[in-house]
Amino acid sequence: MIIIMESEATPFEVDNVVAAVQNKGWQTHISSGSGETIIGVKGKGQPLDPFHLEQMSGVRETMAITQKFKLVSRAFCPENTTFDIGGVTVGGQQVVVIAGPCSVESREQLLETAHAVKDAGAHFLRGGAFKPRTSPYSFQGMGEAGLKLLAEAREATGLPIVTEVMSPDKVALVSIYADVLQIGTRNMQNYDLLNAVGRAHKPVLLKRGMSATIEDLLMAAEYILAHGNQRVMLCERGIRTFDNKYTRNTFDVNAIALLKELTHLPIIADPSHAVGVRRHVPPIAMAGVAVGADGLAIETHPNPDKATSDGDQSLTLPQFSELMIRLRAMATAVGRTM
Amino acid sequence: MIIIMESEATPFEVDNVVAAVQNKGWQTHISSGSGETIIGVKGKGQPLDPFHLEQMSGVRETMAITQKFKLVSRAFCPENTTFDIGGVTVGGQQVVVIAGPCSVESREQLLETAHAVKDAGAHFLRGGAFKPRTSPYSFQGMGEAGLKLLAEAREATGLPIVTEVMSPDKVALVSIYADVLQIGTRNMQNYDLLNAVGRAHKPVLLKRGMSATIEDLLMAAEYILAHGNQRVMLCERGIRTFDNKYTRNTFDVNAIALLKELTHLPIIADPSHAVGVRRHVPPIAMAGVAVGADGLAIETHPNPDKATSDGDQSLTLPQFSELMIRLRAMATAVGRTM
Amino acid sequence: MIIIMESEATPFEVDNVVAAVQNKGWQTHISSGSGETIIGVKGKGQPLDPFHLEQMSGVRETMAITQKFKLVSRAFCPENTTFDIGGVTVGGQQVVVIAGPCSVESREQLLETAHAVKDAGAHFLRGGAFKPRTSPYSFQGMGEAGLKLLAEAREATGLPIVTEVMSPDKVALVSIYADVLQIGTRNMQNYDLLNAVGRAHKPVLLKRGMSATIEDLLMAAEYILAHGNQRVMLCERGIRTFDNKYTRNTFDVNAIALLKELTHLPIIADPSHAVGVRRHVPPIAMAGVAVGADGLAIETHPNPDKATSDGDQSLTLPQFSELMIRLRAMATAVGRTM
Amino acid sequence: MIIIMESEATPFEVDNVVAAVQNKGWQTHISSGSGETIIGVKGKGQPLDPFHLEQMSGVRETMAITQKFKLVSRAFCPENTTFDIGGVTVGGQQVVVIAGPCSVESREQLLETAHAVKDAGAHFLRGGAFKPRTSPYSFQGMGEAGLKLLAEAREATGLPIVTEVMSPDKVALVSIYADVLQIGTRNMQNYDLLNAVGRAHKPVLLKRGMSATIEDLLMAAEYILAHGNQRVMLCERGIRTFDNKYTRNTFDVNAIALLKELTHLPIIADPSHAVGVRRHVPPIAMAGVAVGADGLAIETHPNPDKATSDGDQSLTLPQFSELMIRLRAMATAVGRTM
Repeated sequence: MIIIMESEATPFEVDNVVAAVQNKGWQTHISSGSGETIIGVKGKGQPLDPFHLEQMSGVRETMAITQKFKLVSRAFCPENTTFDIGGVTVGGQQVVVIAGPCSVESREQLLETAHAVKDAGAHFLRGGAFKPRTSPYSFQGMGEAGLKLLAEAREATGLPIVTEVMSPDKVALVSIYADVLQIGTRNMQNYDLLNAVGRAHKPVLLKRGMSATIEDLLMAAEYILAHGNQRVMLCERGIRTFDNKYTRNTFDVNAIALLKELTHLPIIADPSHAVGVRRHVPPIAMAGVAVGADGLAIETHPNPDKATSDGDQSLTLPQFSELMIRLRAMATAVGRTM
Repeated sequence: MIIIMESEATPFEVDNVVAAVQNKGWQTHISSGSGETIIGVKGKGQPLDPFHLEQMSGVRETMAITQKFKLVSRAFCPENTTFDIGGVTVGGQQVVVIAGPCSVESREQLLETAHAVKDAGAHFLRGGAFKPRTSPYSFQGMGEAGLKLLAEAREATGLPIVTEVMSPDKVALVSIYADVLQIGTRNMQNYDLLNAVGRAHKPVLLKRGMSATIEDLLMAAEYILAHGNQRVMLCERGIRTFDNKYTRNTFDVNAIALLKELTHLPIIADPSHAVGVRRHVPPIAMAGVAVGADGLAIETHPNPDKATSDGDQSLTLPQFSELMIRLRAMATAVGRTM
Repeated sequence: MIIIMESEATPFEVDNVVAAVQNKGWQTHISSGSGETIIGVKGKGQPLDPFHLEQMSGVRETMAITQKFKLVSRAFCPENTTFDIGGVTVGGQQVVVIAGPCSVESREQLLETAHAVKDAGAHFLRGGAFKPRTSPYSFQGMGEAGLKLLAEAREATGLPIVTEVMSPDKVALVSIYADVLQIGTRNMQNYDLLNAVGRAHKPVLLKRGMSATIEDLLMAAEYILAHGNQRVMLCERGIRTFDNKYTRNTFDVNAIALLKELTHLPIIADPSHAVGVRRHVPPIAMAGVAVGADGLAIETHPNPDKATSDGDQSLTLPQFSELMIRLRAMATAVGRTM
Repeated sequence: MIIIMESEATPFEVDNVVAAVQNKGWQTHISSGSGETIIGVKGKGQPLDPFHLEQMSGVRETMAITQKFKLVSRAFCPENTTFDIGGVTVGGQQVVVIAGPCSVESREQLLETAHAVKDAGAHFLRGGAFKPRTSPYSFQGMGEAGLKLLAEAREATGLPIVTEVMSPDKVALVSIYADVLQIGTRNMQNYDLLNAVGRAHKPVLLKRGMSATIEDLLMAAEYILAHGNQRVMLCERGIRTFDNKYTRNTFDVNAIALLKELTHLPIIADPSHAVGVRRHVPPIAMAGVAVGADGLAIETHPNPDKATSDGDQSLTLPQFSELMIRLRAMATAVGRTM
């Protein structure tokens, strides 16, 4: 259940309602924004009487939330959540672009990419310092040295940094350098990690698992919000289906349309992983904006054929620059900016 | 293997090459267009020597086609196939829209829809007279009476008619009334039916099976072309995946990008079946145009809640009209018309 | 709804109930077996009052069937359906084995196989005369000549024949030679074909579509029963999933356990197509019997490496013979015979 | 590449070969067992000359391993790996059974279950103290108190304990109480966790991810072996497919047949999660043994309807006991013991 207070409700009235609910053995979660306070009720307590609650001073209405996801749901927060990251607003009118290499490989590679994507109009720089790789014998990332290069690239370009964190004990370290903590596909249901970024003070980019349902994804985000971090972006990056001969995954545009309805959180599309083939990334990126994504994450590399990971799906810097021009036209066609 | 003749090759030279190939026990398939003749080699014969063939008079080059699909492949026909249906060009610069109800239910329903979609800018009228239904107890379509209503609607609006044919023995009947023969999802690998429409003199709209791979779809089209009918449109209409709680299928935009590369045939997107929920049809339609589809098939109904089939995914007539405005802006954004 | 009559109900009482139901605008379907008559109600009519019906003479009880499938459901027929084909009982205590080549290729190939599988203990001979092939350039079967060879093999061995029919207009022809009409995977929802075999006087082996749900399969069988043919066997032959690098399909043992619960029809497992790799066919066949299948369909060939189709998954004749020994032990372990 | 030494090769000869390989820039991994030493070569170095290596003293042969998985492959270790856990041999002739509740809920619940499954013939006791739950609002397990109850149950029954560990920083704690560390489905590609259990001194039960391919699973195991822990069991527990209306997952028996071929590690089947419906667990368990699994993991509970998690798929204690009788007959039918 959630309890929606009148917009002019006083803190005293809010406290009163909270106390009444907690007295019945429930936990509460308070959300304030756009001028009204919403009290979320969770845990297990004695039955609450909606009629009784609605008689209390300052209460406008109560609402049963039957969906398993609560804090992430549109019912809980009807308006789009927007937040600012290093001067860029996510979740608003502007479609944001996160660009950069799969892995941070060297100072030269990263800075060249950072300047190029900045010039082309990207809003964030991405790059992996800790890499989850299918094989233990593959390059596992530069680690903290990579994080330092990312911070240097931010200094040089002003672009906020998006980078992955793979385990709870690295959240503090990555938070020193990153502006956005990325949770990778394989860790979408690594609950200890979700709890750790839920307690962190950085926005989170949560990537959908390869075979995670929409509900699985929303419940994973619910972990983060329930631990106190409201600044979460969800990322559709392709799902596993029977048809994988020509592409790496199947880009699930339906999911983007659905998520825009079910949740108030910003939705990012990752066409690079979703299709996995460089020459098909541009049309898939276009489809992502067309269907309503709030942003795109696009892998770019100065020399994709020499990339240590994901070279097949990385755009060259000129290709990225050219795509940005087409994406701006697309954003305009759907009534947004880029 | 295919043998590409010089553009100035004479019929006599072509016959010579054909005879040489047939002498080795192979069958041949001749395709002429854009000024050059291509001889397709199929069946099983003795080995052919490409070097020897290229010495023959009039031969420009030979090409091994290792892909299983030949006549439908880009290698066989590098340029987009375009054809005219009732004055509408399919496969060209213009994105075409096929609209109408799932089932023909009555004269009033069909004519009201036909006029409305015509006014909104649709290029074709669709409607089912023979309906493949999961249950034997569901409405199975009006049959020939439905076909007659479709023909009447064409008279009234000038819109060419797209309608499904479900068995080989009905191809002649449906061809009397229809401008385009639709092969439904469940019949994509009904080979006797594919052969029958391959021998018909009407264009074909071939819908992808629910779990057909890209190659399965192309090979199904190959059946039609191999029987002499070159005018085939392929239709992506959503695939079956693990995630079907909120949507009926998963719209495979990757497939559209891939098909535009692998084949010269026009590609149609069907957002209605691909998502199966009325309010999500518009964004999915937008994504279809964004990714490069040559056309859209959209279910529309004067009163979807009373439709005998697929009401949940049918747009109302005003919704369709409004969507057409947005789709035209989208077509412009990707450098096309509608 | 179904109406179950007392076992001593007279034809007159049955007719009375039928008339009462039809008067309300419904259609009826009468099933008699094991001494009691069941009246199935279908179509759309005015509301029926169960209380009123149960007052009528000869009526024992009424039962709402909310599942979409009626005639195939356990609720409609609680006991296992068994029937005799050429002296072999299907659906009973004995696990039956259908063996033979994918395609009939020659008299020698077929007769050698027929004698070998008969000697090893198989109960039916299978072989395709009309072959649905992904490519129009692949061998499409010997046609009627193949059917004649199958009939000759039956003469020689006494084994009843299972062979595929691909289109409605071939049902009469195939019925002349075959003991069981097989509906192939790609035709599971070819409704005109289902209706045609529903009107035939031969048992049917209905193979599950590659991505057909359990309900899709049961509804396809419902078409056959609704047209009057009660002798239907359902065949699980592997489904399409994301994991197809090492095997052709994923054998769905869950489906067999479920089908035994949901329907009274016999269930056959096809390990050959389900795994698609010869050396893995035996363990999958064992699992099929273990989970409760009423029969197995196993591809066998005198020389699999030279087979015109499906050689990779066909057992050699000695391999089949050896497998039969292990399968008999397995049947014993689950309390059945073979 | 792997280098297989003569069984009588001296440590000096082994060191010589290792030095030669490392001089070329490669890393080595030494495995000794069954009397022969195998040197695994990994990383990236200069080309190695197999002919030259085979001339070195003590070398029997070299073998290129082209598969991505090395240490887990049959090529690396042709014989089945077996190991002892608390007196029970895993991977050998005997099929082992792991039984117990999804979650440890109370002393009474656990001890009652432990005694009952012991009496019925189970070899291990399972129970979750740390639970990965889809919802942050669901019961997350008793934590260390649950581990202590598991240890108490081991004292009481002699059954070794299998329990899940969810994060690297808990590996040490769980290792104090557990005999086998379970890695859950959602953590199959949590690489930091795989590395941590790779360095632990306890056997590992690695559950397959919901949409993990066979190769993904083997590569996850490769992480554990590459960090020094050879005692790994792989667990097939059902995959995600399009058909999930009646069952929770699709039990992939093909995977078990394949894994027995591709790897030397023991394979465990989990019918409880694979089908997710209590009454279908027994036939699926039977199929698991029939196809060749080395063990089963079966959820059991004194009162499934009151279980805090997975009650729908847990057997009652009498059901488990009855199933064990049938499983023993099945083990006999496939030439094994239980």
